[in-house]
Amino acid sequence: MSKSTQVIGTRLKRIDARGKTTGETKFLTDIKVDNMLHAAPVFSHVASGHLLGIDTSVVENDPNFVAFFSAKDIPGENQVGVIFEDQPLIVHDVVRYVGDSVGILVAKTAESAQRLSKLVMVNIEPSPPIFTINDSRDCVDNFIHETNLACEHQVKRGDLDNAFKGADHIIEARFETPLQEHYYLEPQACIAQVTSEGGIDILGSIQCPFYVQKAVSKALAIPFSKIRVEQAPTGGAFGGKEDIPSETCTRAALAALILKRPIKMVYERTTDVQLTSKRHPFQMHYKVGVSNSGKLLAAEILLEENAGAYATLSSVVSYRSAMQAMGPYVIDNISVESKSYYTNLPPTGAFRGFGSPQAAFGHERMMDVIAAKLEMDPLELRLQNILKVDSSTLTGHHLKSSVGAEETLLTAASACDWEHRESNRDGRWKTGWGVSLIHYGNCLGAAGWFMDGSGAKIKLHRDGSISVAFGLIEMGQGALTIVQQMTAEALGVEPSRITVLPTDTEQVPDSGPAVASRNVVMTGNAIRDAANKLLPILREAAAELMQCDLKEIVIENGVVSNVRNNETLGFSELTNYLYLSNRPMDVLGWWHVPELNYDPALGIGEAYFTYSYATHIARVKVDTLTGVVKVDKIWASHDVGRAINPAGLEAQIEGGTVQGIGWALTEDFRVEDGKVLTDNLTTYLLPTAMDVGEIESILVEDPESEGPWGAKGIGEPAIIPTAAAIANAVSNALGTSITHIPIKPEYILEMAGD
Amino acid sequence: MSKSTQVIGTRLKRIDARGKTTGETKFLTDIKVDNMLHAAPVFSHVASGHLLGIDTSVVENDPNFVAFFSAKDIPGENQVGVIFEDQPLIVHDVVRYVGDSVGILVAKTAESAQRLSKLVMVNIEPSPPIFTINDSRDCVDNFIHETNLACEHQVKRGDLDNAFKGADHIIEARFETPLQEHYYLEPQACIAQVTSEGGIDILGSIQCPFYVQKAVSKALAIPFSKIRVEQAPTGGAFGGKEDIPSETCTRAALAALILKRPIKMVYERTTDVQLTSKRHPFQMHYKVGVSNSGKLLAAEILLEENAGAYATLSSVVSYRSAMQAMGPYVIDNISVESKSYYTNLPPTGAFRGFGSPQAAFGHERMMDVIAAKLEMDPLELRLQNILKVDSSTLTGHHLKSSVGAEETLLTAASACDWEHRESNRDGRWKTGWGVSLIHYGNCLGAAGWFMDGSGAKIKLHRDGSISVAFGLIEMGQGALTIVQQMTAEALGVEPSRITVLPTDTEQVPDSGPAVASRNVVMTGNAIRDAANKLLPILREAAAELMQCDLKEIVIENGVVSNVRNNETLGFSELTNYLYLSNRPMDVLGWWHVPELNYDPALGIGEAYFTYSYATHIARVKVDTLTGVVKVDKIWASHDVGRAINPAGLEAQIEGGTVQGIGWALTEDFRVEDGKVLTDNLTTYLLPTAMDVGEIESILVEDPESEGPWGAKGIGEPAIIPTAAAIANAVSNALGTSITHIPIKPEYILEMAGD
Repeated sequence: MSKSTQVIGTRLKRIDARGKTTGETKFLTDIKVDNMLHAAPVFSHVASGHLLGIDTSVVENDPNFVAFFSAKDIPGENQVGVIFEDQPLIVHDVVRYVGDSVGILVAKTAESAQRLSKLVMVNIEPSPPIFTINDSRDCVDNFIHETNLACEHQVKRGDLDNAFKGADHIIEARFETPLQEHYYLEPQACIAQVTSEGGIDILGSIQCPFYVQKAVSKALAIPFSKIRVEQAPTGGAFGGKEDIPSETCTRAALAALILKRPIKMVYERTTDVQLTSKRHPFQMHYKVGVSNSGKLLAAEILLEENAGAYATLSSVVSYRSAMQAMGPYVIDNISVESKSYYTNLPPTGAFRGFGSPQAAFGHERMMDVIAAKLEMDPLELRLQNILKVDSSTLTGHHLKSSVGAEETLLTAASACDWEHRESNRDGRWKTGWGVSLIHYGNCLGAAGWFMDGSGAKIKLHRDGSISVAFGLIEMGQGALTIVQQMTAEALGVEPSRITVLPTDTEQVPDSGPAVASRNVVMTGNAIRDAANKLLPILREAAAELMQCDLKEIVIENGVVSNVRNNETLGFSELTNYLYLSNRPMDVLGWWHVPELNYDPALGIGEAYFTYSYATHIARVKVDTLTGVVKVDKIWASHDVGRAINPAGLEAQIEGGTVQGIGWALTEDFRVEDGKVLTDNLTTYLLPTAMDVGEIESILVEDPESEGPWGAKGIGEPAIIPTAAAIANAVSNALGTSITHIPIKPEYILEMAGD
Repeated sequence: MSKSTQVIGTRLKRIDARGKTTGETKFLTDIKVDNMLHAAPVFSHVASGHLLGIDTSVVENDPNFVAFFSAKDIPGENQVGVIFEDQPLIVHDVVRYVGDSVGILVAKTAESAQRLSKLVMVNIEPSPPIFTINDSRDCVDNFIHETNLACEHQVKRGDLDNAFKGADHIIEARFETPLQEHYYLEPQACIAQVTSEGGIDILGSIQCPFYVQKAVSKALAIPFSKIRVEQAPTGGAFGGKEDIPSETCTRAALAALILKRPIKMVYERTTDVQLTSKRHPFQMHYKVGVSNSGKLLAAEILLEENAGAYATLSSVVSYRSAMQAMGPYVIDNISVESKSYYTNLPPTGAFRGFGSPQAAFGHERMMDVIAAKLEMDPLELRLQNILKVDSSTLTGHHLKSSVGAEETLLTAASACDWEHRESNRDGRWKTGWGVSLIHYGNCLGAAGWFMDGSGAKIKLHRDGSISVAFGLIEMGQGALTIVQQMTAEALGVEPSRITVLPTDTEQVPDSGPAVASRNVVMTGNAIRDAANKLLPILREAAAELMQCDLKEIVIENGVVSNVRNNETLGFSELTNYLYLSNRPMDVLGWWHVPELNYDPALGIGEAYFTYSYATHIARVKVDTLTGVVKVDKIWASHDVGRAINPAGLEAQIEGGTVQGIGWALTEDFRVEDGKVLTDNLTTYLLPTAMDVGEIESILVEDPESEGPWGAKGIGEPAIIPTAAAIANAVSNALGTSITHIPIKPEYILEMAGD
């Protein structure tokens, strides 16, 4: 191995910065393929019903019309469920939401595809829809699927009854969190082409190329080996391009297969918002027993989730929210039940955090409710119960190292001078402070262990340049630059030598989904594995070339040295020698999460292999006259294990925090009869620069031994604590308990008027 | 390993048969890329001179004109020599042949690019050209390059003087062979594109993607890691797409880089014939000492080659012809000098056989001259001197196994009933019989050992399908099918599971050039290496899944069996389990030719690691009235080590033999003042079905221990003996010695009139 880390920890400029700022980067809308046709979905406009027929006669004479395909055209299985087989690729009987696709229309232009798709007559016999968790749970017949319970997970640990009996206080509260739209800047988009050997090539704005490969294989009855999925530059995803591209790409591939022409499909924004997955709304009931001194003794938690029309990734959301339901605190007696219910809303699926922001809203609001009840400093209450090395999580996972929870809390508190925080509760503008502390299980966890492996390929070129391919993706998070840095570090060379290749299912083994903040940990370790195979070859060649002992070779910063006599060799001289001596120059690396000791029946054990921790402290001003909440500043302290690229981490923290602010305050996703009312940016208000105030990022480095150079994931932790911190601050400002978000002016006025 | 070979040796249908016969396969001319421009070369119309200037003013106002680029636009080195640095990418001063490119013109359509390129005024001050080997060798000043000797190789072994002294007969003869045009059906073609990160993507009808990558890197000063070269379906190559695409693709890439738009360049046929490389013309002088009984005692051989304007692959041609100059015979005292001379003809380069067909014409005609002198049966003379196991080649390479020379001779002789062959020397039609025996060193040999490694990647998918990537290419020879068969065999599965990916520099390590009949040996061994890494993983997983001992697992024909209890498991169940147990499913394989013990100064030792052997026997009818030679039948017996796909081998043998017939009889490549006169199919006569007679392929399998399943190369051996066999047959018919080809009617009439 190279001796010291020289690249890790540097603020390397993003590889994709230039292309994305100059507009040179070609997103899918910019890409044209010869002989290409355009597709648009034809979908249900009622939320629940039975498909009676589809009449395309009105569009068939349009000169731009090419074809319409429905369920009967699918050669393989009409099934696109990511985890459960509950979702047809194209509906042929039961319609379950406004947006359920009944077909795909192909036309000569994108405009005509969209226009004509809206003219197709879809004849549906409506049935009474169900939109709420309560209605779904309480339903006794006419279930949306075989049952309305999409999935459930639980944690049952300790002796709850006795623990509650021994508690000085038993405190209960209910919280609710709403739908959230991903609102990635680039809508769903793909191009599907048929190869001359009858295979399918997909180029897509996607998060999980290997999911798409599987979906296409299943529906089109084509083996995996004939399906290639490449990721195009992707303008945001946030989980919204985890499940949906399996639908969009497969439908486009179906049309391409039948027509033998390339098919492009880019969703219009309003279509995208109506059809695609959202963040699960949660209803949460917390019942917590504490001692007078504030020790958490028992908790009984019920999380109920609105899964929408199809399960998609509800199981992951349900699992993760259960595993983290009481936050990073020691609590030995706990019952968590987490249940997802089908409704006739658009399906809810993966969204940055997978239920963690919702659970965090629950446990962190609850901690403040407890603190208020005990008249304790909320920070003090958290510190008293906080997870440390050698303590166990709520699932009973004994933590041996890399538990930065306390350090994030203390560094955030110190940065904002929590002890001397001023509150202003008089007058129109009230100031409030809120703290929120979270843990986040890295990668897929015990429930997804079977697919929690990732690959990387390092390719040395004889001129000393290096290509690296990885199995996860860049979707705005800075993955390319991190991959570049980790490869450089692993090999002991300058980052400028390294070209990171676009993700392509043919380059590396199935590396699982680009979700769950996996990239740094999974790809980093795969890169280290590849480098560990390559370095002995490099060193052996160097010793041969420099005629010295293997042990005398050091490769550092792109220079190969003989430490005995300080002779040096450029890295490219070494790679050229490698080439000339017929050594293989491509190496595949692989890493999977260590096996986890976990009991799925009780939800006890190692739910994840390690956890990231974060504290957000929010200072808000509440205008009691207008009801407007203004976030002054958020101090965001994150235990990232090891900072690979501090600039990238800060950007992730800022981006996540802003998305959390939007969810907490401005984003009010409205649906009426299953139809989304807020399907554009004039009605769905993303936070602007004016709304977000100041964000101070603090990086805590408590290295994880299994992480590459100690690193842990950051993608999702960045958003998880924010909304709770803001809600706690507003509660603090108003002296009342905020129970749901978004905290709209109406809500404030109502609370302030109490 | 799988127990027995079930796929090797079967006549599997070609993977690419359907696409190529239905027209579904898209060749480069069929491929359009969005926003693409078209390029055509602007080249010299004089054979020798000094470039004074280029005037594009006449085309600049054409609405289709886009740009013209010359040498001054090259950001890197203006150098494209494949082995020697003697060739500018774009000429900036000295012009060396009619076709030397002085620039590249870019226009909006292919038609306008070609039209306008011809209107550009190229001002060249002519100087006296040199066209023949003799003029080049004898030249004393005004050399074409620093010297007129492009390169030379030699073999000096034994005691020549003494051996000649001890010879009963010393026989001398001179032979000549002409230029030959590859005449691949698809001309040179490529598309170059700039990536948003400033890299270059090339899609080309090419033989050596890694050569193109190197050439682009050098001229455009872009690291290898930013250059991706993919091979498009390639309509023939025969060596003609080894060197030339480095020029064409790099010039197109230059234009793409500057204009930031995709550039397509497809040569018109006449341009292609004028500009691209040909088979080297040879002048050969043989002086051989033999005993009365016909034992070869000494040989002094001078091979002189017309290299044309640039060396390109002359060094390989010169080396290979020297190493094989006396054929597969035992001869202990030998001097071979092989010299390539620059002239002002189009460059001669790689062409199926790399000088072997020329050397074979020399040594096999010489053997017949000797036989005639000794009044021996030509077959008997060959048998007496033939290489066998434990004998040494003319370079002193001691052969330990896989020497099928004798068996090819005997099987061919037996098939045609040589002993009872009838000759008809009376009347207008004379019948003649000729035999020709050759050896062919597999792969690049000692002179190219440093780049004689190849890779393959096997990718298992969880559905049991398999992708395989290789570093060499399909150019009509059936490589895809062979790769499929070898992968199936190596893994113990059915070929239908396997998809062979198009060649792409990003998939596998630099695997060297797809030349020298390398594919079966190199790729086959790389596949075996990959499979040897994969099989233990598969077997371990199978044992785990079937709960049995590793040793009890057999994987055969896509079925995994426990031999103890005959339980079985489908291959896809096993791959799915591999996936679910987080095992890596991609494996890279690598193989390089064993190190060779060779002395380059004397040309002594292991010139190649093994040799293929072949005998062609031709029966011809010579019409002494018209001078037409009619090939009745050719018996072509080839030692291929092991027949991977007999159908493919027979097709290769037939194709090579036909190309040999063309070179021997119909193809008369004419150049006047450096300008090719025969630049289309009405003037350059490829043999038609009417010209080739019957071909009987005989496969001899003398396994090579280093070859995959014993296999050796066939691509080039197929053409090597043909012309000599025909010339020997014509000589036999006429009772005179044919000394040069093509054997045109004029030549016959002249000979017959003697």
